[in-house]
Amino acid sequence: MIEEKYKIVAQFAETGIEAIKRTGLRVEVLRERYARVSMPLNGNVSHLGTMYAGSLFILGEFSGGIIFGAAFDYTKFIPVVKDISIRFIRAAKSDVSMEVSMDAAQVAEIQREAEQNGKADFNLNIELKDKTGETVSRVEGTWQVRRIEGSPAIKV
Amino acid sequence: MIEEKYKIVAQFAETGIEAIKRTGLRVEVLRERYARVSMPLNGNVSHLGTMYAGSLFILGEFSGGIIFGAAFDYTKFIPVVKDISIRFIRAAKSDVSMEVSMDAAQVAEIQREAEQNGKADFNLNIELKDKTGETVSRVEGTWQVRRIEGSPAIKV
Repeated sequence: MIEEKYKIVAQFAETGIEAIKRTGLRVEVLRERYARVSMPLNGNVSHLGTMYAGSLFILGEFSGGIIFGAAFDYTKFIPVVKDISIRFIRAAKSDVSMEVSMDAAQVAEIQREAEQNGKADFNLNIELKDKTGETVSRVEGTWQVRRIEGSPAIKV
Repeated sequence: MIEEKYKIVAQFAETGIEAIKRTGLRVEVLRERYARVSMPLNGNVSHLGTMYAGSLFILGEFSGGIIFGAAFDYTKFIPVVKDISIRFIRAAKSDVSMEVSMDAAQVAEIQREAEQNGKADFNLNIELKDKTGETVSRVEGTWQVRRIEGSPAIKV
């Protein structure tokens, strides 16, 4: 279920980047500081009949953008990805989903740093799971929250 | 330029996996143990107008499959990706390309190990470059060459 106030975030996240839209990825649950997202196997099959590595990466990388949209003020900041590692643990033979969340204290700290310095990094560790709940891939990444130019620094 | 004997490899690599085909990625040069591949900016743009991280990953990950096809006997082996790290160094504002190659001794050693043990790992370090030759992303990964079941081990 997508909370009313996040419907525009979910819609932009699913369709705003053409290469993401093409995968058919779906935001299934979105509320403050939490998202669950799934990637269909259909249209994302590898030469082995299981989910293609690039589509698994897209699902993992999506975690940074969607949690940004559910936790930060997107009128003042933008998210940028810095680095990602993905480990392919077992073949994914079904749709794959991931959950991402951030606690309120962490969000407040990152936002305070980005307001002061213009930017602040955050890390995520994400598990991509198949329909039976087995982990198929592990994703670790670093993203950066950047203040949009013209959005003034808050003096503290 | 794609050498005649590798035309079928290039065509399968570009179109055999639907999610790769959708990006418009192109194999520009393919000969024994060498490939140059490009990803168009058009259709692969992020929320910032530069190349989307997922499309950069697809180009980087493609290195393992295409060098496999240009170096190993694909009637006896298949390639599988194990893990990949990608570092986004600067925004890509043009088409992006990468080169991948492997020396003959390395190929022989990997193939010998895969024939004996059924599998053998190989590593690649790839730079993704924009039109001006600047590196936009660095990719490190591990792939595995696996003997197709039914393809007999060679006794040595």
